[in-house]
Amino acid sequence: MSLVIVGSVALDSVKTPFGSVKNALGGSAVYASMASKNFCQTHIVGVVGNDFPKEHINLLESNKISTTGLEFANGNTFKWKGVYNDLNKAETLDTQLNVFADFNPKIPENYQKCKYLFLGNIHPKLQLEVLQQMKSCQISACDTMNYWISSKRDKLLKVIEKVDILFINENEIKMLTDEQNIFIAAQKTQEMGAKLIIVKRGEYGAVAIMNDFIFFTPIFPVKKVIDPTGAGDSFAGGFMGYLSQQNKFDETTIKNAMIYGTITASFNVEDFSLNKLQKIDFEMIEKRKEAVKKSVVF
Amino acid sequence: MSLVIVGSVALDSVKTPFGSVKNALGGSAVYASMASKNFCQTHIVGVVGNDFPKEHINLLESNKISTTGLEFANGNTFKWKGVYNDLNKAETLDTQLNVFADFNPKIPENYQKCKYLFLGNIHPKLQLEVLQQMKSCQISACDTMNYWISSKRDKLLKVIEKVDILFINENEIKMLTDEQNIFIAAQKTQEMGAKLIIVKRGEYGAVAIMNDFIFFTPIFPVKKVIDPTGAGDSFAGGFMGYLSQQNKFDETTIKNAMIYGTITASFNVEDFSLNKLQKIDFEMIEKRKEAVKKSVVF
Repeated sequence: MSLVIVGSVALDSVKTPFGSVKNALGGSAVYASMASKNFCQTHIVGVVGNDFPKEHINLLESNKISTTGLEFANGNTFKWKGVYNDLNKAETLDTQLNVFADFNPKIPENYQKCKYLFLGNIHPKLQLEVLQQMKSCQISACDTMNYWISSKRDKLLKVIEKVDILFINENEIKMLTDEQNIFIAAQKTQEMGAKLIIVKRGEYGAVAIMNDFIFFTPIFPVKKVIDPTGAGDSFAGGFMGYLSQQNKFDETTIKNAMIYGTITASFNVEDFSLNKLQKIDFEMIEKRKEAVKKSVVF
Repeated sequence: MSLVIVGSVALDSVKTPFGSVKNALGGSAVYASMASKNFCQTHIVGVVGNDFPKEHINLLESNKISTTGLEFANGNTFKWKGVYNDLNKAETLDTQLNVFADFNPKIPENYQKCKYLFLGNIHPKLQLEVLQQMKSCQISACDTMNYWISSKRDKLLKVIEKVDILFINENEIKMLTDEQNIFIAAQKTQEMGAKLIIVKRGEYGAVAIMNDFIFFTPIFPVKKVIDPTGAGDSFAGGFMGYLSQQNKFDETTIKNAMIYGTITASFNVEDFSLNKLQKIDFEMIEKRKEAVKKSVVF
């Protein structure tokens, strides 16, 4: 099965204790697509400006990501500038929405029949519009952020009502539900509609919760985190890519999707931008899977 | 094999969002002993005052904990008063060391031949003195805290040099090693002497690290945390109790010890003081073990 990924496409300028990049390829849709492409046919939907380098398109296409859904608009590409003094927390120095401000995702006809959908962190109004354009979606997932929870709560609740899977940070789910215990918070979120809640906990890994089913995954302990940008998106992309490939939604499949998400994210943080994700193959992924197994199975 | 546990014996006054207790039985040695007694013959070493209720001694003895090592001193028992507004963080309102201020642990002769030792969080000078009194200790473990790391670092380093296992909080190991990455921090701590480092991460569970061996355990998600007091000590007690029972120090044994520690701690937080730990049996523990297995094995 193939997967449609909608989200931001960005040019990121990032500084971490280990170096910096300027106007490097980034954005939620890009990170998620470069993660999912290891598992399934991936279709990206996003908007870029006139300044978007052709080499970035080439990179996506050479990784077998379909770019028919990339819209070219007049103006500059979305730009984000951030610094990580602490590797667990990004500090935004500058955000220029540019063409992303008027992003109005149009799903190409051949994408509309895809059975899997991942909505990156964009305005919930746009997430709803994408959901309406999909003709025979089987499993839809979305990500969100604190800004939409506080300022566009009504629209976001409509999205949560419709999607099957919600990816959300630990602090965000507490904020969404006004509940400190994440297991109770997840239960409350399920009552809003989404079937499976995936709580992302940064360096502590992630938890999947669906009724009585709970599955914890730790992080894969990489020797050196170079740049955490896109960790959450590459986790979601790896998860959704594996899920689309399996075309099942049982507990075993969800557990494995969590592990593949974690491993894909662990590669992503080992270099800036998409530098590492473009170099990994299935053998490398499977090797880390064995290591993760050893670190949790008793 | 049997286990000697040295630490504080306290009368705790605790308030949480779910109620409060006054002068209830507590202290690191008590929590650890009531956790380990499920697995092995446990010997407690500590000091209490004239005000220490006989019923607490009865409780320990009826749980087959040997109390020969409990010293009765003139004065009042160590008292701690704390409040949890956030269940993840205790706020100390009052500490009265009382007889604990002059605690000078004397290990009874029949304890000195025990092969397993757990040193609760006490002055590293006392921890060293206990280590010297043990005649044929096979595996020793210690806990510590930020106060000793900053104010008695030299003595603490001597303890870490001698023990086999160090139980330490995530923030404390960062402080001890001046390193933010806990895997590198654990490596640095191993270089100080301890073979196995167990990093406690509160609601995120714990990690065991020994050279290339890494094992993560999540928490067991209890429905309602009533009182987190003693969670770390009951974790360490459950861990050490299982280890003493097995009399092995291989990876499989360490993994299982981590799981039994986690489960014992999960029961402990479900009620105030030792109210829950005195009610659990091996069948209840095994049932949670199956649930933990389902939540991590893939």
